[in-house]
Amino acid sequence: MAASNGSVTTSLVGHSRPSGALQLKSSSNKPNPLPFVALKTGLCYDVRMRYHAKVVNSQSDYTDPHPEDPRRTYRIYKALSDAGLVSQKGASGNADIESELMQPIPAREATEEEVTLTHSKEHWDFIRSTAAMSNVQLLDETRDGDSVYFNNDSFFCAKLSCGGVIDTCKAVVEQKVKNAMAVVRPPGHHAEPCKPAGFCMFNNVAVASRVILKEYPEQVKKILILDWDIHHGNGTQRAFYSDPNVLYISLHRHDGGKFYPGTPFGDYDKCGEGPGEGRNVNIPWPKAGMRDGDYIYAFQRVVMPIALEFNPDLVILSSGFDAAPGDELGGCFVTPAAYGHMTHMLKSLASGKLAVVLEGGYNLDSIATSALGVVKVLIGDAPLPLTNMYAQHEAVQTVDNVIKMQAQYWRCMKIGRTIKDLPGAPAAERLHDVIRRYQAVQLFTSFSMTALPIFRDRVSRSFEDQVLCTPGFQSTKTIVVIVHDPPQFWAEPDSVTGEISLHETYMLDCCRKYVQWAYERGYGVVDINAPEHYTDQDDEGLNPQAAIQDLCIYVWDNYLELSDAKNFAFISVGDASAGVVYLLGHREVRSRMRTSITFAGKQPLHPIMPIMDEFIIDWYYKNSRVYSYDSATSAGADGGGSGFGAGGNGNSSSDRSSGKGPKKKLGNVIKTEIENINELMNGKFEEVTELLEGELEDSDSESEGEIVQVPERKRVKTQESS
Amino acid sequence: MAASNGSVTTSLVGHSRPSGALQLKSSSNKPNPLPFVALKTGLCYDVRMRYHAKVVNSQSDYTDPHPEDPRRTYRIYKALSDAGLVSQKGASGNADIESELMQPIPAREATEEEVTLTHSKEHWDFIRSTAAMSNVQLLDETRDGDSVYFNNDSFFCAKLSCGGVIDTCKAVVEQKVKNAMAVVRPPGHHAEPCKPAGFCMFNNVAVASRVILKEYPEQVKKILILDWDIHHGNGTQRAFYSDPNVLYISLHRHDGGKFYPGTPFGDYDKCGEGPGEGRNVNIPWPKAGMRDGDYIYAFQRVVMPIALEFNPDLVILSSGFDAAPGDELGGCFVTPAAYGHMTHMLKSLASGKLAVVLEGGYNLDSIATSALGVVKVLIGDAPLPLTNMYAQHEAVQTVDNVIKMQAQYWRCMKIGRTIKDLPGAPAAERLHDVIRRYQAVQLFTSFSMTALPIFRDRVSRSFEDQVLCTPGFQSTKTIVVIVHDPPQFWAEPDSVTGEISLHETYMLDCCRKYVQWAYERGYGVVDINAPEHYTDQDDEGLNPQAAIQDLCIYVWDNYLELSDAKNFAFISVGDASAGVVYLLGHREVRSRMRTSITFAGKQPLHPIMPIMDEFIIDWYYKNSRVYSYDSATSAGADGGGSGFGAGGNGNSSSDRSSGKGPKKKLGNVIKTEIENINELMNGKFEEVTELLEGELEDSDSESEGEIVQVPERKRVKTQESS
Repeated sequence: MAASNGSVTTSLVGHSRPSGALQLKSSSNKPNPLPFVALKTGLCYDVRMRYHAKVVNSQSDYTDPHPEDPRRTYRIYKALSDAGLVSQKGASGNADIESELMQPIPAREATEEEVTLTHSKEHWDFIRSTAAMSNVQLLDETRDGDSVYFNNDSFFCAKLSCGGVIDTCKAVVEQKVKNAMAVVRPPGHHAEPCKPAGFCMFNNVAVASRVILKEYPEQVKKILILDWDIHHGNGTQRAFYSDPNVLYISLHRHDGGKFYPGTPFGDYDKCGEGPGEGRNVNIPWPKAGMRDGDYIYAFQRVVMPIALEFNPDLVILSSGFDAAPGDELGGCFVTPAAYGHMTHMLKSLASGKLAVVLEGGYNLDSIATSALGVVKVLIGDAPLPLTNMYAQHEAVQTVDNVIKMQAQYWRCMKIGRTIKDLPGAPAAERLHDVIRRYQAVQLFTSFSMTALPIFRDRVSRSFEDQVLCTPGFQSTKTIVVIVHDPPQFWAEPDSVTGEISLHETYMLDCCRKYVQWAYERGYGVVDINAPEHYTDQDDEGLNPQAAIQDLCIYVWDNYLELSDAKNFAFISVGDASAGVVYLLGHREVRSRMRTSITFAGKQPLHPIMPIMDEFIIDWYYKNSRVYSYDSATSAGADGGGSGFGAGGNGNSSSDRSSGKGPKKKLGNVIKTEIENINELMNGKFEEVTELLEGELEDSDSESEGEIVQVPERKRVKTQESS
Repeated sequence: MAASNGSVTTSLVGHSRPSGALQLKSSSNKPNPLPFVALKTGLCYDVRMRYHAKVVNSQSDYTDPHPEDPRRTYRIYKALSDAGLVSQKGASGNADIESELMQPIPAREATEEEVTLTHSKEHWDFIRSTAAMSNVQLLDETRDGDSVYFNNDSFFCAKLSCGGVIDTCKAVVEQKVKNAMAVVRPPGHHAEPCKPAGFCMFNNVAVASRVILKEYPEQVKKILILDWDIHHGNGTQRAFYSDPNVLYISLHRHDGGKFYPGTPFGDYDKCGEGPGEGRNVNIPWPKAGMRDGDYIYAFQRVVMPIALEFNPDLVILSSGFDAAPGDELGGCFVTPAAYGHMTHMLKSLASGKLAVVLEGGYNLDSIATSALGVVKVLIGDAPLPLTNMYAQHEAVQTVDNVIKMQAQYWRCMKIGRTIKDLPGAPAAERLHDVIRRYQAVQLFTSFSMTALPIFRDRVSRSFEDQVLCTPGFQSTKTIVVIVHDPPQFWAEPDSVTGEISLHETYMLDCCRKYVQWAYERGYGVVDINAPEHYTDQDDEGLNPQAAIQDLCIYVWDNYLELSDAKNFAFISVGDASAGVVYLLGHREVRSRMRTSITFAGKQPLHPIMPIMDEFIIDWYYKNSRVYSYDSATSAGADGGGSGFGAGGNGNSSSDRSSGKGPKKKLGNVIKTEIENINELMNGKFEEVTELLEGELEDSDSESEGEIVQVPERKRVKTQESS
């Protein structure tokens, strides 16, 4: 191996000369069959970049050093060295790197001409001016700038970092190396054409891209910049926002625009402009805690399909490692194995021409191990096996948004989406209006139910038929009130066009089964539909939850309370239960209300706010049943709360504890494994109707309000059933 | 380079000894940092495998040699040699392979013990018996077998091929090589445990897998077998159909079960059984002509997600090259670049432990260039850039079927599909019944239209409200008949669960706009709805096309013909036009029919069959307008008819030529670029109603049948509009 390595070095030193590849062939007695394989991976590292450091101003600068720490590049270099990829000989910098597997790429200062291809002259001049500033001035600039610091060496280091990246990309393009890693600082991707920001002075990757496009017009016509730094590369996006020849793809935390740099510029709907429209892809994670499965999913679904369709001549990777576990700023968990897999995928592009450039990453151990994972794969090692490869709920939704947005620009993203924007199309009617009308017709035909007049202060098609009742319900002794979300639908969209055919679409409406039961028992029935969305004249929706709360109060005040009925039972389905719970808290209903059944399914549970009656909480806990889907008991969640399946529960898991202590406000919660709410209503039909009949019949023999003994028995029942 | 190569050879000869990797470290003065990178790619090749050949029986055996030709392995070896990956020195076989980049792996005969881990003793005995057969016996066996031939060397070669594959896999597992290619014949993947088939005697890959699982219980617990031979590997699938530790994934032509081996066993719904259920994935292409984009799409959407979730310890690639361009049996177009990309993706699994085994592939040039593409990537070259990366319509649908089927076994396939099988769920109603009821209510409310009594010989909910008419239409002078498919829907299913919310679902029904127009002009209106599917008692659908044809005839015979109306205009929407065209051909309608407008959109056009009236064809061509979507003029189809966008047209392109010669039967076809049929109806509203009014009014002043001059003028109009 030693001999082999030695000789490989020999053969590759030749490569550090411009015509290396050619020389190699001529110097060899037969042509090299796989020149790419014979090449080493390049490494650009220069100890002098550590001179850029925050001017020490206070004790805290020692105790709590700035995250963009001069040791960052050294720690990565040391990790490569400890792994035996380079020999460390004093680690005093690039000059004496000796490696059997890697090819040193010397860093040099970028020139004004190069830098100003991307940045304004003013920008250049300002950064240059920092070299001569007094400490006071430096501290002022540091204070006033957008999280960037300066000392008198910053200008030099920024040029060195930028020049190193330029030559790293050149070495890759000229095939002096098969691919390369530039371990440089200060980073660059936040630096905008006219202003430094986010620890960045010159946008190394942007400057290098411009230089390459200018100096290698034949070899490099299209560049892909992939940016997996946890922060959005606002500077890079800005630099190429209207350039069709540079595709910028960024995966980053966006958190609805609250994550640094904290503007909407990093959102998924920012796709470039003018000739560059469709050449910008943002994959904006909504939260911390993103993991391997999420990144691999985004690569499989968006990054690689688009990259293959774009077919670049060079790939530059803006490689921050602040998505790695241990990085406090990033708060994510991308392992070295995943960095390796993503690097491996990118190696398949542009005939392997890949230049990796360090951006952010502030946990010194994390960036070292992450960089090592990347470099090993660059050299040719296989990426490590991945485990727990599940995309989280939020990742799937984010990627879906990106796909929908990019579908207008990339054919590979168009699959399943040939019809766009139909909501704007002629004669489009919201299906929930269509459906409710149909239900009204059915309920009239089957049970002669008719609409109850409801006074409205505004107009919405969604109000029509919203409350339906059996004839003369007000004079019945018992009234069952069913408050429900619109029925559930399920369809099989065409895999190519996304169109939905009627015979592959199903409506599930289990409420009618309960209406029929109540109707046949001679109870009065009131059916209240709670749209998720109101079709308004101006199509500005009401707040659905407020709307159903008002409606329940309205129906109680104007009809139910005034009715002759002695016994009420409420059945709530889905999110509509918010209305019933609200009613219980805001009106005195205990004396006539016998029981409240809630099929919550996956919907979050709503606690009672006892405005009228403090005993209502206890009453509710004793006289209710709240069937709630519990992922923990369900098959889907074997990967723990982590998988997207479990993610499906939303954030309501805290509401899910069975009724104890303060949770009594949620009622008597019964966990169920049945995911689908219609299956749930169907499965519990006998159990629930038996209970209701018990309640509503018993109550006749009881004087009003005497409810203590009833719930006792009911508790027993529920224990069995839960 | 020569030196380096030389030394690499030195260092790696060590690897051909079992403990090579260890020896390397000890023999080197410092540990090898990346042992995997230091390893060569293994190559198993043995000239003796050419001894297996078809017994020459007739002249045709010379002129038209059997596709499984002894030269197959040599031609691949020669291609590697010509490319400089191995030195050919007489090419007299494995013994004297000399290579700086590849590690020879000697082939040896598989033992009975090894082979019978997979095959029955009877199977072994039978193959062995061929060694002693007379030519007559051999020819009989060849004739009687399932496309497999024998000579007296077949047994020896089959053992050699099988043994070579076993040792190739062992070399990979023991990391004597980083990965390997076994250029062997006879192939194996059709050989079932108890019978030879499809040019295969012993199932090399299956035998090797069993041996590995048995001899390396610690290192290898799970094996992925990826089979991209254009034929389904029925033998391999059978061997592991109930084995949870071997995941078999096959991409192959299935052609609805008509492609060799011609059984349903290769379909996407065959997922394994017992403990092996969910460990078998078939991706069955429906036709010839599959291309790079289709294979890469399948890899991105199914193969890699499932493979990463399975996380194998070893990957064995059953690598037939009969999907390559030029292979007459395969008829597909997978380029060496695509083979390289797929190989590159597989290299990311199992820490790079990948053994490639030759299966089929019968064009000697195609298999050579394809194999070269694979081996270069195995050694470490970057895959070549891909172009025209579009998945075809059929590929997308096939992959979608696979995803739906595998969703029950793989979490990564479950995304967007948490609700399964709702059609079976309680209270599910077909939406087309729901919608038609709603339309009836609307048409009654707006135009007091009511259902027309239709005699039926069977019961279907879909019949209710199928034909609606304005009051007293029979006594109006003019009747407009609108025959339409159910309205179109569009929805945004939840990206995680696949559920559809009502407020994200839209119904598009442009017919009512035309009904309103006719109603306001005082015409009689008949609205006929043609479901794509009939909700039957026993839920066995009628044939929709036959049903709408019968219905149109029925309405004509019982109502329209008997009416007082002098003028009829027909408007057909979508596939329902089949009914109108049928009516035109089977009844004498010319005298009162003024014009027929068809909004065909993407639906295939229906030619008139002139049963009653031979002049109807000419009449139809002159008096009709058939708006048909033409992909050629549409933006989506820049990739030619090849992309999935264009594929969306189905196979009806032949129907699309504008009305000339025999195509007059299709009527006066007007190409349109508007993809969506509702946008089409909306866009043409003025144009069409103006024409209709002209026709229906003109006709008053004209005596019946006098149609010559009318069409003349109309031809001019249409020219403008088309």
